[in-house]
Amino acid sequence: MEKQREKEPLLGVLGGMGPEATQIFYRHLVRRTKAARDQDHIRVLIFGDATVPDRTAAILSGDEEPVRARLAEDARLLEAAGCTCLAMTCNTAHHFAPAIREAVGIPLLHMPDLTVRRAKKMGVRRLALLGTAGAMKAGVYQDICALEGVDCWVPDRETQAMLTTLIYDQIKAGQPGDETLFAKVAAAARAAGCDGAVLGCTELSVYRERHPLHRFFIDAMEVLVEACVSACGKPLTEDKP
Amino acid sequence: MEKQREKEPLLGVLGGMGPEATQIFYRHLVRRTKAARDQDHIRVLIFGDATVPDRTAAILSGDEEPVRARLAEDARLLEAAGCTCLAMTCNTAHHFAPAIREAVGIPLLHMPDLTVRRAKKMGVRRLALLGTAGAMKAGVYQDICALEGVDCWVPDRETQAMLTTLIYDQIKAGQPGDETLFAKVAAAARAAGCDGAVLGCTELSVYRERHPLHRFFIDAMEVLVEACVSACGKPLTEDKP
Repeated sequence: MEKQREKEPLLGVLGGMGPEATQIFYRHLVRRTKAARDQDHIRVLIFGDATVPDRTAAILSGDEEPVRARLAEDARLLEAAGCTCLAMTCNTAHHFAPAIREAVGIPLLHMPDLTVRRAKKMGVRRLALLGTAGAMKAGVYQDICALEGVDCWVPDRETQAMLTTLIYDQIKAGQPGDETLFAKVAAAARAAGCDGAVLGCTELSVYRERHPLHRFFIDAMEVLVEACVSACGKPLTEDKP
Repeated sequence: MEKQREKEPLLGVLGGMGPEATQIFYRHLVRRTKAARDQDHIRVLIFGDATVPDRTAAILSGDEEPVRARLAEDARLLEAAGCTCLAMTCNTAHHFAPAIREAVGIPLLHMPDLTVRRAKKMGVRRLALLGTAGAMKAGVYQDICALEGVDCWVPDRETQAMLTTLIYDQIKAGQPGDETLFAKVAAAARAAGCDGAVLGCTELSVYRERHPLHRFFIDAMEVLVEACVSACGKPLTEDKP
């Protein structure tokens, strides 16, 4: 009995980046698992480590080591607690994925990687990358697009400024996010010839929670949720969040 | 720096009982913390251990040891990971609170205890106890009411059967819960002379999420959320969930 449970998957979540996005991730994890009783659900250990330093600030300033060290430490904590695989509910933080993978012996379900592959599978020819200035500077998505041979578009300076306002001044501050501002971002992506756009910041997944979006937008968090449910050997519901 | 962080509170959550209730608990924890950026939030480690055996089944059958051992083990895991206090998002599981308190050296914020004290402070004279058959049989709330000198009403057999249907057949199975059935439960509580009712099962807190309720109902989960935010030294928002 004891041995059997030890073999059961336990998903570790590096979260709290931000907290609202992490709780929505958890909501989708529960909703997308086909279950009729508590015991049908995934075992999950969610580390909402809200005090991880800001990822974008670290990347833009070049002072990356405190974030890298903290994420590696948090990953080790989750592995020591018995987690069998990891997910991280922050796209920008995937810049530090190599350090996390080096720190632990369990797999990390890589959100940007999974999302670009999904876009490719969907036949997207030119993918708009919507995310933080940190993720753009670090090339979190660009590098994977290059590897996968997916053409991508990085927001111009003006569009990126609008995204920063949406993500930092509005959504992370608990506001729903300005629809007019988001529409301008979407218009810029379409004007650049994109036929798909990744919501490559979990705060934009929070935005989507409150404002249903066209399927032009691929929600990286939803792709990650599906991968987590499958990795833990559970059936997915068809019910989209 | 390292030492300072080690002193920062880390809330450990014994959750997954059920998963939906635990994610709503997390949602309220985030919403009720006054914050303008990620780093203003609580550090939290949520163990959604969905495979904890059913609490009510254990209490009704008398085969309690597997649940008791598992909860003690999960509490030790959270303490070993650095948690500084614990909360448990299942009222019925508080029957096992003594074993949890014995297993660890960190405090458990006791949901039924906090809730009965809140009801007393609100001046409730006769409190209806709405929860699982397991919680009723174990006297989870009755014992505290006796200690605090709060008169309480335990649902009759017919009303308890309706609560069991709501909790197990409907809410735990992912349904919103039948309003007519809930109204019958509420009517029985009022007919018994109660001037307040505790939502003493977190599945009923899930029900409340979907059906706004009169302040006759005291949501144990909300009381626990407020205690957690305060215990971690964070300011509460006034914004009720």
